[in-house]
Amino acid sequence: MYSFKNDYGEGAHPNILKALLKYNGTQEEGYGLDRHTQNAISMIKNLVGDRKADVHLISGGTQTNLIAISAFLRPHEACIAATSGHIATHETGAIEATGHKLITVDSNDGKLSPDLIEPVLAEHYFEHMVKPKLAYISNPTELGTIYSKTELQNLHDFCRMKNLLFYADGARLGSALMAKDSDVTLKDMYMLTDAFFIGGTKIGALLGEALVLRNADLKEEYRYLIKQRGGLLAKGRVLGIQFEELFKTNLYFDLALHANDMAQYMAKELEKAGCPFWIDSPTNQIFPVMKNNVIEKLSTQFLFYTWAKVDQDSSAVRLITSWATPMDAVQNFIHAHKKASQELLIHT
Amino acid sequence: MYSFKNDYGEGAHPNILKALLKYNGTQEEGYGLDRHTQNAISMIKNLVGDRKADVHLISGGTQTNLIAISAFLRPHEACIAATSGHIATHETGAIEATGHKLITVDSNDGKLSPDLIEPVLAEHYFEHMVKPKLAYISNPTELGTIYSKTELQNLHDFCRMKNLLFYADGARLGSALMAKDSDVTLKDMYMLTDAFFIGGTKIGALLGEALVLRNADLKEEYRYLIKQRGGLLAKGRVLGIQFEELFKTNLYFDLALHANDMAQYMAKELEKAGCPFWIDSPTNQIFPVMKNNVIEKLSTQFLFYTWAKVDQDSSAVRLITSWATPMDAVQNFIHAHKKASQELLIHT
Amino acid sequence: MYSFKNDYGEGAHPNILKALLKYNGTQEEGYGLDRHTQNAISMIKNLVGDRKADVHLISGGTQTNLIAISAFLRPHEACIAATSGHIATHETGAIEATGHKLITVDSNDGKLSPDLIEPVLAEHYFEHMVKPKLAYISNPTELGTIYSKTELQNLHDFCRMKNLLFYADGARLGSALMAKDSDVTLKDMYMLTDAFFIGGTKIGALLGEALVLRNADLKEEYRYLIKQRGGLLAKGRVLGIQFEELFKTNLYFDLALHANDMAQYMAKELEKAGCPFWIDSPTNQIFPVMKNNVIEKLSTQFLFYTWAKVDQDSSAVRLITSWATPMDAVQNFIHAHKKASQELLIHT
Amino acid sequence: MYSFKNDYGEGAHPNILKALLKYNGTQEEGYGLDRHTQNAISMIKNLVGDRKADVHLISGGTQTNLIAISAFLRPHEACIAATSGHIATHETGAIEATGHKLITVDSNDGKLSPDLIEPVLAEHYFEHMVKPKLAYISNPTELGTIYSKTELQNLHDFCRMKNLLFYADGARLGSALMAKDSDVTLKDMYMLTDAFFIGGTKIGALLGEALVLRNADLKEEYRYLIKQRGGLLAKGRVLGIQFEELFKTNLYFDLALHANDMAQYMAKELEKAGCPFWIDSPTNQIFPVMKNNVIEKLSTQFLFYTWAKVDQDSSAVRLITSWATPMDAVQNFIHAHKKASQELLIHT
Repeated sequence: MYSFKNDYGEGAHPNILKALLKYNGTQEEGYGLDRHTQNAISMIKNLVGDRKADVHLISGGTQTNLIAISAFLRPHEACIAATSGHIATHETGAIEATGHKLITVDSNDGKLSPDLIEPVLAEHYFEHMVKPKLAYISNPTELGTIYSKTELQNLHDFCRMKNLLFYADGARLGSALMAKDSDVTLKDMYMLTDAFFIGGTKIGALLGEALVLRNADLKEEYRYLIKQRGGLLAKGRVLGIQFEELFKTNLYFDLALHANDMAQYMAKELEKAGCPFWIDSPTNQIFPVMKNNVIEKLSTQFLFYTWAKVDQDSSAVRLITSWATPMDAVQNFIHAHKKASQELLIHT
Repeated sequence: MYSFKNDYGEGAHPNILKALLKYNGTQEEGYGLDRHTQNAISMIKNLVGDRKADVHLISGGTQTNLIAISAFLRPHEACIAATSGHIATHETGAIEATGHKLITVDSNDGKLSPDLIEPVLAEHYFEHMVKPKLAYISNPTELGTIYSKTELQNLHDFCRMKNLLFYADGARLGSALMAKDSDVTLKDMYMLTDAFFIGGTKIGALLGEALVLRNADLKEEYRYLIKQRGGLLAKGRVLGIQFEELFKTNLYFDLALHANDMAQYMAKELEKAGCPFWIDSPTNQIFPVMKNNVIEKLSTQFLFYTWAKVDQDSSAVRLITSWATPMDAVQNFIHAHKKASQELLIHT
Repeated sequence: MYSFKNDYGEGAHPNILKALLKYNGTQEEGYGLDRHTQNAISMIKNLVGDRKADVHLISGGTQTNLIAISAFLRPHEACIAATSGHIATHETGAIEATGHKLITVDSNDGKLSPDLIEPVLAEHYFEHMVKPKLAYISNPTELGTIYSKTELQNLHDFCRMKNLLFYADGARLGSALMAKDSDVTLKDMYMLTDAFFIGGTKIGALLGEALVLRNADLKEEYRYLIKQRGGLLAKGRVLGIQFEELFKTNLYFDLALHANDMAQYMAKELEKAGCPFWIDSPTNQIFPVMKNNVIEKLSTQFLFYTWAKVDQDSSAVRLITSWATPMDAVQNFIHAHKKASQELLIHT
Repeated sequence: MYSFKNDYGEGAHPNILKALLKYNGTQEEGYGLDRHTQNAISMIKNLVGDRKADVHLISGGTQTNLIAISAFLRPHEACIAATSGHIATHETGAIEATGHKLITVDSNDGKLSPDLIEPVLAEHYFEHMVKPKLAYISNPTELGTIYSKTELQNLHDFCRMKNLLFYADGARLGSALMAKDSDVTLKDMYMLTDAFFIGGTKIGALLGEALVLRNADLKEEYRYLIKQRGGLLAKGRVLGIQFEELFKTNLYFDLALHANDMAQYMAKELEKAGCPFWIDSPTNQIFPVMKNNVIEKLSTQFLFYTWAKVDQDSSAVRLITSWATPMDAVQNFIHAHKKASQELLIHT
């Protein structure tokens, strides 16, 4: 059964596997000091427009988040995130396991804003409470929504003013940057945060995220911190080669665009077919609302998550497309949806 | 320059890359629930002879150690290791970062024994000191030495008697098992420890270690602990496919044997050429002692570490071979050594 | 200015200071092995009706909570508390600093119940989320409310059924037990929880809380854990002597009753004077609602906290009485309130 | 039986209890914001000669150490201590429980020196090892030895040069400062370290240590850190009043001198009686070497620890005197020793 459950169901873009094969026999230094990693880092520095950026390739997103955040904070300092933020929901308390409290704020669209952070700062005013020190966002969010450049600028300025660090989880960053109405670039992500990461795992790589640090205070001794948390791969080449392939051409952005296109095509067709949407998401995950019996029918043909109950008869489902999703699969789903809707219409 | 610095300088065995390519397009479940991981786990259960064994594939050795050890211990419990143990030297305090003290004991050959543990237990008798609870060994050790079955049995029995857990770091386990005089099998490793891991990274894989848990007390909820530390790869297939390839045939053991053979051939030839040895090591790392000027000369042709000063004129070097080391490289080194020794003999 | 800000503003009950003086010259064992601590522990065992209870005297409440909770949990396990729970608000992330996530649930009256816990368990169903393992309550709560025996029994039974530990913070436990309508005894606290503590600091002692453990699984090696967190006083006698004095007669309960009586007398008189209450609290903290200009006036004569805005013109204040609050102070406040209310009535 | 086991066997100096009684009824602010604590802090600032010093009163030594050290270090940074250092031996892994490795170095007299630290720095040169960042000493050491001003100056200069923090555990600081040959003052302790603490518990107080921070980088937000670890007593007055009493006159130093005098008198008399010493200690703990049968005999009359085996027939014992040790007890011991030695001489 074809799966729209997530965007890490397939392997890697063929170029990546070809490159792994091509350089396989060459001896390289270990632990990220290999030529491929150095080269990938250099490419990323160019892309963010600052040769002084600090870039580290780490194996996964949870690991990148816990390394970065625990390095940024003193023991009494806390991290602010949306209630739906990945670190707050699906990382098994990884941040708390490093000793730091997460302060969560409810957000309708999964996004943080100065308005949501302000009351947290007001409430945490003395030493019997943790000290909020870092604002965490994900772009795109876990609901598929994205930040505009103005929103990022506002958060950046607010954090500067309030002496907060500003960190962005970019597990699906490519999808945010390539979304139709996005006015944000990699350079913006760099200029408007203290640190962020560029996710590889969900956009064409086998594994790997690139942590990019701008704030000079934060750069020192990151390799120690990565090693201490078990995040330094002995064969760092595995990460280096992948990011080389993703960034030596426009591949990373092309793959993200493809994933977005597939999801948005589905969205448009499902809308035409009468589906309302639980939330308006311009990236590679969409949340159409369907009748429960339509969902049931589709579940026999496709894998996907039922996300939220909407009313007695209908629910929102989550459909995710990936760099590898073929147009065929998308068409099949649209067709199956149409068929299921019509049949059930007839039967009622 | 050819490098004998470590055994993670090359990529992966070609079979592994072929398999990654072969299954690349198929959609799989994430986070280790894919068919390849399940299959690899099943193979490993068969190899250790117990279908009830718990097996988890984790991305690296430091991560495996920190996940396993922090899961085994309550906050006041400590881990005993040889002073040369990897967790005590080259993991940037990863165990302490999870809150646990390491108690180290000096050992000439890098091995632990009941005799070395006994005084630690005697000394730690009350609540003003940590409680020793786990004995950590590496097999082979960081000095290339290995444990006999009797030694493991003795440690196992002693730990049982003293209510200690017994854990083995097998980053290079294949090399230990395939060493010429080894009488230890994977089944023995399983039966004689509470947990151990089978290292892939240093024996033919791109990355990946297989943690094997025997003690039923220790099995519960390991997936939570792996996820919390960032050790659960979204594309778990990457690890699953690799261990499938290593264990569906005898590949893992063949690659380990090759590495051992290359090192031991070098050792034999260097011995013939008059080299004493700093320590007697039957695995894929050897420690010949050479005149400093010979070392200097060889350093212009090969990469390797000078390990320890022996006397005014000579030092021990560490030479490591890998699953990929070609006989040519070994012969070249032997030849270069002979030449350097003779030249310098003439000049003095 | 007389303060109704908290119940730790004065020193200790004179009996305690007399006893400290009386035994001052005698040499005692250190770290809680002294005769006074042993005797106090014995008294508490009798009070809870189980000689097998494990009792430890610890210097403060935050410390007791962090020691107890971090000892109960494995790294991936989390603690459930009301959003208003002390560990969730005013302990500077002490629990998170030991590596554990707090899951908070909103509660109108500061109390937990099976109904509030149930959805947390439903939501946390897999290894990408922490595993809820312990329910934390405070009795009385931070809002002055108390649990009935039935409520405790329900929580106990629910926790058993769901394999949760059940722990009660009793920083002001005496006030809960001595509240007018309370049907809960120390024995009930013991029988219906896995562990709880009897707060001394806020009920007549200089410092000190008595942690009582019932669950046999939890008893082992607590002295290690207390020492590791810095909670074992060298001169344990300081805690032992205090709890001896509190429990060798009915002193602890008498002091709690006095504090309750003072607060409840104030409540009754303020009610007569027309004050509504923000919440109905039968213990030593009350939350009358007053006009803001009345509050302003009273603030020039007494110290207390303004707790919550109720509407444009009025707010709830928090008034706390202690074991040492004299009836005079209470009368003065009531009188001042009456006067302020009347004056302001005239002026408007 | 009279005990020479430790210096925390008795209660507090009577002045302290009198003051606790005197101020008992007055209401004070909580958590160290009371007038007594503020006053004690002011006194200590004067004593160290810097009004900008940051002073915090904390309940115990282990707690002070773990709060201070964990606040000073980033996650990958480690603390260097002598193998005999209190944090390395008798604090149940409290420092490691905050995530930091201790690197211990063997030292004959329990003291650190640049010579002993230098090799640690040389060895820890890269990111696969922790980064040494703080040197911990205790003054006096756990062997009763003390640092000269020159030794402290050398450590200070060395630490500055090597970018290490320098921290002193002063659990028995008074004894070091008042030792006969000491040329070190409280001001020196302040000027030559980044932080140190003045122990109260072992010099006349019921409990309490005063942490003094000089380094401006280290001052920020210590109250958060103290609260988070459970070190902020609600009735901070208990600590404030005690340090007021100790420092409003010369009491602290007088009590330390008395303890030293008692121990040194014993040492002199035991030396006259023919005892060699295991180590030469000028403070309130001495380590005479006695025949085992003499020790056995004395053990029936006095409590003390047998510290170390010296040869087949004799051992070192540890005798500790306190601020409260009466001359009588000392004389009795000397007499008993003489008697036991003579009797046993006759019998052999």
